[in-house]
Amino acid sequence: MAKELKELTSREENYSQWYNDLVVKADLAENSAVRGCMVIKPYGYAIWEKMQRQLDDMFKETGHVNAYFPLFIPKSFLSKEADHVEGFAKECAVVTHYRLKNDPNGSGVVVDPEAKLEEELIVRPTSETIIWSTYKNWIQSYRDLPILCNQWANVVRWEMRTRLFLRTAEFLWQEGHTAHATEAEALEEARKMLDVYAEFAENYMALPVVKGVKSANERFAGAVETFCIEAMMQDGKALQAGTSHFLGQNFAKAFDVQFVNQENKLDYVWATSWGVSTRLIGALIMAHSDNNGLVLPPKLAPFQVVVIPIYKNAEQLELISEKVKALMAELKTLGISVKYDDSDNKKPGWKFAEYELKGVPVRLAMGARDMENNTVEVMRRDTLGKETISFDGIAQHIKQLLVDIQKNIYTKALNFRTSVTREVNSYDEFKAELEKGGFLSAHWDGTPETEERIKVETKATIRCIPLDGDETPGVCIVTGKPSVRRVLFARSY
Amino acid sequence: MAKELKELTSREENYSQWYNDLVVKADLAENSAVRGCMVIKPYGYAIWEKMQRQLDDMFKETGHVNAYFPLFIPKSFLSKEADHVEGFAKECAVVTHYRLKNDPNGSGVVVDPEAKLEEELIVRPTSETIIWSTYKNWIQSYRDLPILCNQWANVVRWEMRTRLFLRTAEFLWQEGHTAHATEAEALEEARKMLDVYAEFAENYMALPVVKGVKSANERFAGAVETFCIEAMMQDGKALQAGTSHFLGQNFAKAFDVQFVNQENKLDYVWATSWGVSTRLIGALIMAHSDNNGLVLPPKLAPFQVVVIPIYKNAEQLELISEKVKALMAELKTLGISVKYDDSDNKKPGWKFAEYELKGVPVRLAMGARDMENNTVEVMRRDTLGKETISFDGIAQHIKQLLVDIQKNIYTKALNFRTSVTREVNSYDEFKAELEKGGFLSAHWDGTPETEERIKVETKATIRCIPLDGDETPGVCIVTGKPSVRRVLFARSY
Repeated sequence: MAKELKELTSREENYSQWYNDLVVKADLAENSAVRGCMVIKPYGYAIWEKMQRQLDDMFKETGHVNAYFPLFIPKSFLSKEADHVEGFAKECAVVTHYRLKNDPNGSGVVVDPEAKLEEELIVRPTSETIIWSTYKNWIQSYRDLPILCNQWANVVRWEMRTRLFLRTAEFLWQEGHTAHATEAEALEEARKMLDVYAEFAENYMALPVVKGVKSANERFAGAVETFCIEAMMQDGKALQAGTSHFLGQNFAKAFDVQFVNQENKLDYVWATSWGVSTRLIGALIMAHSDNNGLVLPPKLAPFQVVVIPIYKNAEQLELISEKVKALMAELKTLGISVKYDDSDNKKPGWKFAEYELKGVPVRLAMGARDMENNTVEVMRRDTLGKETISFDGIAQHIKQLLVDIQKNIYTKALNFRTSVTREVNSYDEFKAELEKGGFLSAHWDGTPETEERIKVETKATIRCIPLDGDETPGVCIVTGKPSVRRVLFARSY
Repeated sequence: MAKELKELTSREENYSQWYNDLVVKADLAENSAVRGCMVIKPYGYAIWEKMQRQLDDMFKETGHVNAYFPLFIPKSFLSKEADHVEGFAKECAVVTHYRLKNDPNGSGVVVDPEAKLEEELIVRPTSETIIWSTYKNWIQSYRDLPILCNQWANVVRWEMRTRLFLRTAEFLWQEGHTAHATEAEALEEARKMLDVYAEFAENYMALPVVKGVKSANERFAGAVETFCIEAMMQDGKALQAGTSHFLGQNFAKAFDVQFVNQENKLDYVWATSWGVSTRLIGALIMAHSDNNGLVLPPKLAPFQVVVIPIYKNAEQLELISEKVKALMAELKTLGISVKYDDSDNKKPGWKFAEYELKGVPVRLAMGARDMENNTVEVMRRDTLGKETISFDGIAQHIKQLLVDIQKNIYTKALNFRTSVTREVNSYDEFKAELEKGGFLSAHWDGTPETEERIKVETKATIRCIPLDGDETPGVCIVTGKPSVRRVLFARSY
């Protein structure tokens, strides 16, 4: 059977292999000839486009505009903010020359030693430095503030161990960089964008997230405070899905960006930055998919409905096609995207497996008997449930079904997360429970040393200090010292 | 007067300086701290977003999908197609290392010599090589064809002399890369995309273009045939606005991409590539703008209408605002984008100059007398013509006005091009006429040597062999040898 050609490793057998298989077999992405860089294939890119469009609309609704800053960053810029260079210098691609020449020995081309740059250029791992060097010229007075820019771009971080979507040397993302006259306004912006990310994750990706603050160890290099949304994957590991940083005046000081405030005094500008990346596609896959393939939330599926005709001859096909085309027109007016797969070189069974693998939310199948009975077979991808129903009113039925699927996928993920989130009250309990995966809510004495010890001994990190979690004080599970509140631990991607 | 702060150099005085001033003063783009790389500012990027959205829709309507390929190209890949490496090796950014480290002498960071790449990576100047190395794994049979991918991306060409939008080291573009089973189909695709570009230029940019074929000297490095659209700027210089390449089997052969065809025989795959870039923004500016600033075609203007209230006190402003808000709602339902500038820190005269500079197609001004008389002052940016008309039915009036402006801008550019396009019949006449600028239609003997001689002696190049031009034979203006037809010469950007 054709389906076996696409057979996946099961999640139970090897979760990691299941993920890799799925990404490749569902035509989302593949490794390229360049170490650590991926090719995002059309089906995977179509999901990214849906994400982009929605996020971009949300950014614009909150007053942001897009702009574009250079790919390259002069090496000296990176050094200007001490923590920032510490965080990024060890994993960056460095451009040293600007020309090749024919190999004097006659074999291909070589770097032209005469075309050496005076100062090396870094391929941006993030753009705070180049952007703040630019903002310096844009800002003189409080009247020039706020600046609310976002950039859609590629960035490069030379990761040693890479995985498609989750951790690649090059990835696509958006990075917001805002400048404000007051600390309060910048903090409000950082929190607002965290809320935008959480809303996107929950309402579009159907992915429940915990909003929180990072501990100092996990903070962005150069930030005063890093806010994050943390999600739970089906294997019990956490995944950081987005971050929003309050940068204080760190970059303004590094690049000497001062302004005249309303009291007519010079002050440094306050900053935020915030980003999500193609990593979200990895999160989407890991959170919802199953052993048959992808399960995509309808709001982000490249197409939401696929229709497959089952026929013995051209005459039957023609009758089915006629009926389907009217339905497709109706679905389109309802804003529902549909694909009609009447290709004649693949059997219906192969198509069924293929679209299950690709996570199309709703599949319709129509055969000769359906034509006689005015019925259609409807399968929903999330539950794999099938029903044969009347063709009359089918468009409205599908519209409601898509809403139900979106909601059901979210609820399932939320129930799973709830089932693997629990409080632990001793380090022994912590270690034992950690082996089962999930979020562990535990008391911690607030020191980087204890956090580091836990990380080294258990591979768990503090995912976040939840913004709306339990704030009862207690004692640290490791040191017994006072703890102001529980924080969320997990092993993570 | 505030207007003078933004005063432009006039076109007559110094066209080149006028362009540079305009790009910067209208907040479209600026030079960055990185040599040759620009910052595209929000207003400039908003124009690019309009272009992207429209082009992307047109690509999808013609069956294309988006994908994403790596930023980096292994050095050896470039060498695989002989003409290609010749064309791009001399102007590429080369990544040689993947890590920085703290300077042992204590001053900042330096390249870590231990982190040298085995093979250097080139920052893509264009993506044929990395894409065809990928397509090799996607194509086995004619059933896998055609592949119709497009990519929105940044590319880097280390140009020595750069100008904002027109020629920058890094620029944004789209590059289509298609794979076909037959030569005829690939040729048809290359022509089809040329038509898409021409339609976009004429109907959206209001920019008349000549569709043609490049001579061998001007062909894309690696192409069998390069089709192009050529536009005429106001200073009489031509600008290549887009290219579509028929690549034959060159890249398939370089990367050994073979497929089993319908006759069950192995053959190399046929290819096209096609692209337009942020250079189009430069073309847009140069073709239409005037000494007061930008003139934007309504279809690509970030906002199409600006409304400016003229008031003496808060009470007057409130009455005007109320009336304007109802109008804005009405315009939005007509799909017209509007900005209401009621900021109180700038005078109306300053605002008038600012929005003229920014090329907003329609400006409305409303003062106390307009309120009394139920009128509004309407200015159209293309002609700077003003009229005071009744407020009743104003939304429909604006809708029609935007159509008229779009058409008028196109007609004006077309008339200009017609006026500077003429036939010349001797080399002396050619040289004399060339000094006046414009397109010269002349006979040429078809040899690269003659073309090169003309270029060296006059700085004019063959912009294209028009697809639908005069095909009467004649004799070459330089050598007197037979010429099969006239071709189009000009000095160019």
